[in-house]
Amino acid sequence: MSSYTLPINPVVVAAQYAVRGELVQKADKYREQIKAAKANGQSNPLPFDEIVACNIGNPHELGQRPLTFSRQVLALMHCPQLMDSADATKLFQPDAIERAKRYLQDIRGGTGAYTTSQGLACIREEVRHFLEQRDEVAANTDDIFLTDGASSGVKFLLTLIVKGKEDGVMTPIPQYPLYSASMTLLGGECVKYYLDESKGWGLTREELERSYNEGVSNGVTPRALVIINPGNPTGQCLPVSMIQAIIRFASEKKMLLMADEVYQTNVYGSTPFTSFKKVAASMKSEVVLVSFHSVSKGFVGECGQRGGFFELYNAPEEFKAQLKKLTSISLCSNVSGQLMTGLMVNPPKEGEASYPLYKQERDGILASLQRRAQKVTKILNECTGIHCNEVEGALYAFPSITLPEKAVAEAKKQGKVPDAFYCLSLLDATGICVVPGSGFGQVEGSFHFRTTILPSEETMEKVMNAFKNFHQQFMQKYA
Amino acid sequence: MSSYTLPINPVVVAAQYAVRGELVQKADKYREQIKAAKANGQSNPLPFDEIVACNIGNPHELGQRPLTFSRQVLALMHCPQLMDSADATKLFQPDAIERAKRYLQDIRGGTGAYTTSQGLACIREEVRHFLEQRDEVAANTDDIFLTDGASSGVKFLLTLIVKGKEDGVMTPIPQYPLYSASMTLLGGECVKYYLDESKGWGLTREELERSYNEGVSNGVTPRALVIINPGNPTGQCLPVSMIQAIIRFASEKKMLLMADEVYQTNVYGSTPFTSFKKVAASMKSEVVLVSFHSVSKGFVGECGQRGGFFELYNAPEEFKAQLKKLTSISLCSNVSGQLMTGLMVNPPKEGEASYPLYKQERDGILASLQRRAQKVTKILNECTGIHCNEVEGALYAFPSITLPEKAVAEAKKQGKVPDAFYCLSLLDATGICVVPGSGFGQVEGSFHFRTTILPSEETMEKVMNAFKNFHQQFMQKYA
Repeated sequence: MSSYTLPINPVVVAAQYAVRGELVQKADKYREQIKAAKANGQSNPLPFDEIVACNIGNPHELGQRPLTFSRQVLALMHCPQLMDSADATKLFQPDAIERAKRYLQDIRGGTGAYTTSQGLACIREEVRHFLEQRDEVAANTDDIFLTDGASSGVKFLLTLIVKGKEDGVMTPIPQYPLYSASMTLLGGECVKYYLDESKGWGLTREELERSYNEGVSNGVTPRALVIINPGNPTGQCLPVSMIQAIIRFASEKKMLLMADEVYQTNVYGSTPFTSFKKVAASMKSEVVLVSFHSVSKGFVGECGQRGGFFELYNAPEEFKAQLKKLTSISLCSNVSGQLMTGLMVNPPKEGEASYPLYKQERDGILASLQRRAQKVTKILNECTGIHCNEVEGALYAFPSITLPEKAVAEAKKQGKVPDAFYCLSLLDATGICVVPGSGFGQVEGSFHFRTTILPSEETMEKVMNAFKNFHQQFMQKYA
Repeated sequence: MSSYTLPINPVVVAAQYAVRGELVQKADKYREQIKAAKANGQSNPLPFDEIVACNIGNPHELGQRPLTFSRQVLALMHCPQLMDSADATKLFQPDAIERAKRYLQDIRGGTGAYTTSQGLACIREEVRHFLEQRDEVAANTDDIFLTDGASSGVKFLLTLIVKGKEDGVMTPIPQYPLYSASMTLLGGECVKYYLDESKGWGLTREELERSYNEGVSNGVTPRALVIINPGNPTGQCLPVSMIQAIIRFASEKKMLLMADEVYQTNVYGSTPFTSFKKVAASMKSEVVLVSFHSVSKGFVGECGQRGGFFELYNAPEEFKAQLKKLTSISLCSNVSGQLMTGLMVNPPKEGEASYPLYKQERDGILASLQRRAQKVTKILNECTGIHCNEVEGALYAFPSITLPEKAVAEAKKQGKVPDAFYCLSLLDATGICVVPGSGFGQVEGSFHFRTTILPSEETMEKVMNAFKNFHQQFMQKYA
C-alpha cells in the first residue's frame, strides 16, 4: 500500500455519526472474533457469546419478522413468471397476486427499470390516498417524492437550502445525528434548541426564540427548523398545542419546517400521533413544510429495503422545480423500496384474503414493542444513578446517567468522553452495544445513552439483567 | 400555494443534468397527453403514438428481459418461506434455492435489515472473487464498497476529495453529466480534457498535460482524473497503451484516478475491455485508483435495483477510514441492489441447473446489442450532415451533426442551444427522445446528440426510419 496521500475534504473529517461510530466498529471486531473462534474450533475469548446491537433501530436484525403480504408482492414483482404457474395460487394469496399484477401494469420495465426521479406514479398515488385518509386534508401526487429511506430525502432538502456557514438549521438537542452530520458536510451550522428532559423532553416557544436569536447573533440565518416527532432519541410524542406553536414560529421566521415523522406508528403512551401537515392545514398556516416517512421503522421495520417518501406542503413552485432537478441527479430511488412504500401505506383491507394474517402480524409487533418500551423504562429506572423518561413513542430509550466523579476522571485520563467511556465499558463487559448521549447532543455536564427497545421479548430479560449487573459493578468500581 | 419564498442554494440552481433535463420533461408531458387521450376515448392529438426513450440507458424500459436466475434468487430472498413449500422445486431451479439459502445463512435479518455501511460481507466476497478472476490480481474485501448504483459511489468519492473551488477534477469532454453536476453541487471545478473525435474519441498525454496546466493556471489543483471506459457518451474502448499513459499521468500528478467501468461487458468492437486495476497492477503503479461497476448496464440492465460497487486500489488507510465514515452517514445501500450485485458477479456456472438458460439469455442480449450498435451507426452515417464513430462499447451513439446556418439562427432566435433545438424538433415530430451534445460538453461550435442503442430489434427499423425522415425534413427546412 505504499502510495501517495490525498488531501481529504475537512468537512468529511469533521463529520460525526455516532450511530455507526467508534463503538459500533469495536462491536464489529468483537463479532468477528467470536465468529473466528467458532470457525477454528477455539473457545470464545470474550466474556459474552454475542453482540446485542442496541445501537441502531434495525428491527429485523434482532428477529422481527417481515409482514407476509408485502414480501409476497415483492417476490412476485421480481419474478412475474411465478404468476403464470398454476402452483402460484398455492403459494401466494390472491390479493398479493392481484396487487403485483396491478403494479406491473403501471410500471414500464418492472423492477429492473429506472423510474422517474420523483418515484413511480402509481405508488405516489397510494401515498396520496394514505395521507388524505390520515390527515383529512387534500394531498397531491406532485408534492410527493419517493426516496431511499428518509435519510436521502433529508439530505436532498438540506442541500437545497444550505449554501454555507451563513445558513443555519435549527435542530433539537438531543437530535438524530444525521442532521448534524449532513450540516457538517454541507458546511452549514446547526442552531441548537434544547428539549427539556424535566418536562418529558418538551419544548417551548421561549427556547425556540432563544435559539433563533443566538443563531442570528452568531451571524447565522436559520433557514429551516427540524423537529422529530415521535422523538429520536428522546421518545416523546408532541401534543397538538406544541405542534401549533412550532408551526407558528417557523412560519413567522419564514423557515422551512422539516418534520421527521418516521416513527408515526410507534406510539405507546396516551398522546396520539398528529401530523404536522394536519395541524398546519387546520391552522391555514402559510408555513412551508416537508414531512418525512420511511418503511424502516413502525411495525414494518424494513430498513434494508431503503424506502420512504417526503411530502411538500405550501412549497413554492421554484422550490419544487429545483428539488426535482436535484433528485434527478441521483436518477431514482430503488424500486423495491418504492414498492415497499406502497405496500406500507396501502396494506390489505378488511375482507381481503391477506387481512387476517396482516392484522395479526401488525398487532403482534406493536403490542410487543409497547411491552418492551415499558419494560426497558422500568428496569432502567430501577438502577441507581439512572433516570429514564417514559418512552411514549419511537424505538429508543434515552436515559440520563449520573456518573461518579471517579468514572469521569478515568474517562478523561483515557481521552474519552465520559458517556462514551461508560458505553465502551458496557460493550466490553456484556456485548451490549448502545450509543453515548454525546453522539446526539445533551446539556453540558449531563450524560446519557441511547438504547433501542428492540431485543426480542425472549432475550430481553437476559439483556437487561446483563445491563443491570454491569451498571452496578461500574458504579461500585468508581464510587 | 400562497406562501413565503425560501432562498435556494445557488449551486443547486447552477447544476445541470441533461439526461433528465428539459427534453425529458417535455417527453413526460407528451406521454401523459397520449395516456389522457386514450383514457378519455379521444384521438391522439400528437403526430406519434408513443415516446421512444433513447435519452437514458434504461434497457428494461425498452423491453430487455431480466435474467431468470437472478430474479428467482431475489424472489426467494424476499419470501424465504417459499422454500419451505414442496411446490418450490417446481417453480425454482435448485441452484437458485441453494444460493438463496446460502445468502440467508450469511445475512442476519434477511433483506429487511440494514447491512454494514460497506455492504454485506458475503457479497463483497463474491465481488472479490470476480475481480481476481477478471484481473488475475489479488483483491481484498475491505477495499470493496457496495453502493446504490455507481452514481452514489462517484458522489462519495468526489465528496471525499473536493472541498471547494480551489479543487478540480479532470473530466473528459464529452462526459457523463453526473460528474459535472456533482462538481457543481460540491462547489469544485471540472478541469476539462477533450477526447479527439477524429481519432475515435481517443486521448493523448499532451491533451492531459494541457488540461492539467490550464487548471493550475486558473488557480485550480486537479485532485482526481475521471475516465469512462468504455466511453459514455462516446462509446470508445481504450487500448492498454492509453490506459498505461493515463495511469502514469495520474500517478505523477498524485491524483486519484477514478475509472468508471460500468460498461465493461458492453464491448462490440475489436478492442477488448481491460480494467484499469489490471493495468495498474501490471505496471506496479503507485496510483491511487477507484474503479466503479454497476448492475444497471452490461447485459444485466437492472437499473431499478440500484446496485453497484467500487474497489479501491493503493488507497491510503486514512483515506479508506474517512470514506467508511462518510458512507456510514447514509446507513447502507439497498439490500436488493446488493444481492443483484452478487448475482451479477457470480452467475450460474457450467454444469449448474440454471446455466443453460443463463447462457442463452446473456448471449442473446449481447448479440442483439452488438447488432443494434452496428445498425444505429450505419443508419446515422447514411444521413447527410451526420457523422458517427463506430460504437465500440457502452449503450450509446454520439454522432456529430452539421447544422445548417439557418437552423442555428432559428435556435438562437428561440433562445435555445442549437443542438437542443434540433433534439426538441426531433421529439416534437417523432416522439424520439435523445439528449443534446451540449449536455455532455463538446468542442465549441460542434453539435452532437446522444442516443441509446436500446430500442428493441423489432422496433429499431421503425424508430430509425422516423429519425431519418425527420432529419431529411429538418435539413431541407433550414437549408
